[in-house]
Amino acid sequence: METKPSAKKTLEAITPKSQDVSRWYTDVVLKARLADYSPVKGCMIIRPYGYALWEKIQLFLDTEFKRLGHQNAYFPLFIPESFLTKEAEHVEGFAPEVAWVTQGGKEILEERLAIRPTSEAIIGFMYAKWIESYRDLPVMINQWANVVRWEKVTRPFLRTTEFLWQEGHTAHRTHEEAKQEVAQMLEVYRNFVESELSIPLVWGEKSQKEKFAGALNTFTIEALMPDGQALQAGTSHDLGQNFAKAFEINFLDSDGERKFVWTTSWGMSTRIIGAIIMQHGDDRGLRLPPRIAPIQAVVIPIVYKDGTAVHTKAKELAGRLQKAGIRVHLDAREEYKPGWKYSEYEMMGVPLRVEIGQKDMEKGQVCLVRRDTCEKMFIPDANIEAEAGRLMGEIQKTLFQQAKQNLESRTHRVGTFADFVDTIKEKHGMADLSWCGEQACEDKFKSEAGATIRCFNPATEIDTCAVCGKPGLRRVFVARAY
Amino acid sequence: METKPSAKKTLEAITPKSQDVSRWYTDVVLKARLADYSPVKGCMIIRPYGYALWEKIQLFLDTEFKRLGHQNAYFPLFIPESFLTKEAEHVEGFAPEVAWVTQGGKEILEERLAIRPTSEAIIGFMYAKWIESYRDLPVMINQWANVVRWEKVTRPFLRTTEFLWQEGHTAHRTHEEAKQEVAQMLEVYRNFVESELSIPLVWGEKSQKEKFAGALNTFTIEALMPDGQALQAGTSHDLGQNFAKAFEINFLDSDGERKFVWTTSWGMSTRIIGAIIMQHGDDRGLRLPPRIAPIQAVVIPIVYKDGTAVHTKAKELAGRLQKAGIRVHLDAREEYKPGWKYSEYEMMGVPLRVEIGQKDMEKGQVCLVRRDTCEKMFIPDANIEAEAGRLMGEIQKTLFQQAKQNLESRTHRVGTFADFVDTIKEKHGMADLSWCGEQACEDKFKSEAGATIRCFNPATEIDTCAVCGKPGLRRVFVARAY
Repeated sequence: METKPSAKKTLEAITPKSQDVSRWYTDVVLKARLADYSPVKGCMIIRPYGYALWEKIQLFLDTEFKRLGHQNAYFPLFIPESFLTKEAEHVEGFAPEVAWVTQGGKEILEERLAIRPTSEAIIGFMYAKWIESYRDLPVMINQWANVVRWEKVTRPFLRTTEFLWQEGHTAHRTHEEAKQEVAQMLEVYRNFVESELSIPLVWGEKSQKEKFAGALNTFTIEALMPDGQALQAGTSHDLGQNFAKAFEINFLDSDGERKFVWTTSWGMSTRIIGAIIMQHGDDRGLRLPPRIAPIQAVVIPIVYKDGTAVHTKAKELAGRLQKAGIRVHLDAREEYKPGWKYSEYEMMGVPLRVEIGQKDMEKGQVCLVRRDTCEKMFIPDANIEAEAGRLMGEIQKTLFQQAKQNLESRTHRVGTFADFVDTIKEKHGMADLSWCGEQACEDKFKSEAGATIRCFNPATEIDTCAVCGKPGLRRVFVARAY
Repeated sequence: METKPSAKKTLEAITPKSQDVSRWYTDVVLKARLADYSPVKGCMIIRPYGYALWEKIQLFLDTEFKRLGHQNAYFPLFIPESFLTKEAEHVEGFAPEVAWVTQGGKEILEERLAIRPTSEAIIGFMYAKWIESYRDLPVMINQWANVVRWEKVTRPFLRTTEFLWQEGHTAHRTHEEAKQEVAQMLEVYRNFVESELSIPLVWGEKSQKEKFAGALNTFTIEALMPDGQALQAGTSHDLGQNFAKAFEINFLDSDGERKFVWTTSWGMSTRIIGAIIMQHGDDRGLRLPPRIAPIQAVVIPIVYKDGTAVHTKAKELAGRLQKAGIRVHLDAREEYKPGWKYSEYEMMGVPLRVEIGQKDMEKGQVCLVRRDTCEKMFIPDANIEAEAGRLMGEIQKTLFQQAKQNLESRTHRVGTFADFVDTIKEKHGMADLSWCGEQACEDKFKSEAGATIRCFNPATEIDTCAVCGKPGLRRVFVARAY
């Protein structure tokens, strides 16, 4: 394990996305230096460029959470085994993937401690202690934390043993209020992913089989990757009074009666970075939506002999872009050739490249290259701020439209089980079909095509069940999933 | 454990600080809702008000780190046992306080995983993989993370089994450059704690006995609490080539030779919140320095009968203060009386209280109460922005001066061992003495007075060793410590 791989500084070609999405994905993650494998099974290192993306995600979400009245707090990493077992469905769902601490220093623990796979149990216990009267409600707390789920097969960002996330936990006086919170937070996620990450979604309720262990209902946002697999990008759970009863979280209401609270929880994780990579990347590497890109534009001076004037100009351009509010990086390193740099920043998905050379200066022009379309254009020097600003919006929109095109072209309304299987297995798509609501039919999506109900489709036009032919109960989106 | 304590909403008196610092401390932590005990031994919950303080700390430090060229990243929570044992002193120092994961899901692990007590080992391994040439240096990475050290005796913030911190890890081409980094980061901490937290410090090198396990040298900032106990508030380590050799972190230098890098690490944790509480608090609760206070001013309307006009005025004042850049909170709740609110915000340490009632309005005045001195003053309504701004600076300074007075009056230059013992045991102070450099003499500080060398005093005037009378090697600060 200690052999040192030669750190190749030249960018080799990566596996084409069309040829092998899975290898392409790993190539991009490693070569764009978003993450690296660690010597701990299933755990990754989030490298600075990947972490800068996570910080952008955090900033946006954290601001939204606070604007809506949530506060951050921090609860322990450890959850005593007896706590995890209090809510029956919860323990059943999570026990198989818990990492257990059994020893502290030289002391063998009397009770094993779970590394939190999620924090409903420990937070429920504390809410029971803190909440006394209706005046204490609602409690609206979020925490940014690491969690651990012992996974067998892992991939950087998409599925790792340890990951980073935020988990919101709220307690309310009425079910109505809790349901509003669940819907509101799903909408925060949907808006964030569609508007900031340029990833179009379907969203809605999960089936009882697919819901969070311990919830009444789970609501989800689901993206569809270019290989036809769905990716659950965020979830919001109506926990009903399940945890309130398990942990005795009750309050004295204004009518003098003692009642159980209604709780919710909702989370988004570093997995969303996997969605960005998978959704937008191409054969040259990452393509980042400008709103989330740590670097929005890179300025590269093209220098042959004496480059003083070009370097000065490049610095001026970078300064002007920065003043215009664009996150700009000037790469003036002389030990790397311009062509090498082009590949480097294409791999990193920087939305806009600004090239400036002696000839451009003489013509009073600047060369811009869009990362999304690879389109190259020459514009008057004086227009750079306006043009770069405009292109940020354009690129954001183009990425969304391309992804939307993928989502729409891969989503097939089907009426028969044969068409469903064909959609999943041959067309690598997502089926939009009617379902009777029976578990037996739901199980067939998995057994026959390796697919699951991603969420309910709110459409009201319902046909007969595509599996059994009995009257349909609701429309559902069914796909394979990451 | 599930019995619900009655959540008393009235503020009972807390233990006076002069009577029992330890009980006073716990009272303040709980009643100001900074933190709460958790059902997990040695772990605390950081409640929203305490976490808001941590966020302020994070924002300041993170901005400084980035300004100085550091990037954030994230490394795994788990460290394989074999990694921890690679650096001999390191494992010896940390093994006794490691929490061990021995089981994942149903699988018993072949190799135990340590929950990170600090991350030199895992980061060293990755640096060996990433660093190839002198062009890759320096590597300057920081991570915000939770760490676990299995402690026997714990107190909220000051010593907890799990705590939050930042740990910076850098790798350099030369020892000179690494030493500059160590000094620079110590200065970042010193400046932060003195200027933002109003806590005066002594700072300098640790003795070899007290250094970080695996370091060549450790540098520290030390505060002196009102009970005469020192509190280590941040450390910066010169790791020399110890970890570079243990993990084979080497690079090809420009002279064609392969060399080991020089590494550093530096950290500050949630413990610093304990220092703020302990240093500044008084019998009414917390006193927060304005620069770090989540709420800098609270506006409280004093309403008897019809309070519409007063409420409108209070809202106006809060709005004006906010516009003036002050973090203001308006507490217009009608179910709590003004007097109750005064106590509440005094407990929370809010630097400035703004009271406004009908009579004040008629006189065109506003009542201000400083939390630091409890001084009450009436000022013209029109002056509130200017006066509040001025008081923020005043309070910040006054808290520093009071703490400085404590530090200076408790620091005693001593020449004999008897005076040293008297300083520690009777005067509850810190001794400034000369030391011969021998471990045997250093051990006596502990065995005879429960004290340790906190850091070297850079003063050059050196007497004979206060313990053995032989020629002194250096001046040192010796105290008991948290």
